[in-house]
Amino acid sequence: MVVRSKIWIEIDGKPVFSKGREMLFRAIDEHRSINQAAKEMGISYRRAWSYVHAMEERLGLKLVETRKGGASGGGAQLTENAKLLLSRFEQLEHGFNKIIDNRFEKIFKGVEES
Amino acid sequence: MVVRSKIWIEIDGKPVFSKGREMLFRAIDEHRSINQAAKEMGISYRRAWSYVHAMEERLGLKLVETRKGGASGGGAQLTENAKLLLSRFEQLEHGFNKIIDNRFEKIFKGVEES
Repeated sequence: MVVRSKIWIEIDGKPVFSKGREMLFRAIDEHRSINQAAKEMGISYRRAWSYVHAMEERLGLKLVETRKGGASGGGAQLTENAKLLLSRFEQLEHGFNKIIDNRFEKIFKGVEES
Repeated sequence: MVVRSKIWIEIDGKPVFSKGREMLFRAIDEHRSINQAAKEMGISYRRAWSYVHAMEERLGLKLVETRKGGASGGGAQLTENAKLLLSRFEQLEHGFNKIIDNRFEKIFKGVEES
């Protein structure tokens, strides 16, 4: 018996950041490309771009800077705001998993058989 | 900008308790009927019963006692094990929401504009 948890951020009832978005942003940061990041996530470029765009709209912040074309096929990189959001979300999640595991251990100890 | 979270319990990678199951169990406890509880949740009797059954299988514990027929159309009630599980899950969730709100406040303070 284990506890699982999920955390996300909403504005006006709509998600603006979550584990999935965190992974997408890390992949964009790593590959400097929305296209490569989308491939890694197993989603289309169009979908990845629409996630980024929706987040930008909801937050009212630019999150990914893109440059067009050239021999390298363009590129993308996270803005400082996006990096800040990413690192704060990581902080939030990090402590959270430990806390929840400890609480579960304390409350459920001795109840589980498996 | 608000933080949202979800917590659930798994055995061998399969969910055995969650917010939805908690609501179903509270409804069974209140109405003393799986049928009435299912109606309140907007699901079929068959589905409600299959949730209960799957949880009993995974936990290896009887959770709902039913009695058949009669003028009142039978009835259902939670076992002591089910009540214990429900109350511990409530405890786990309760502190959790406060903790996560506080952490969010601390980490994100001053970042949000909306």
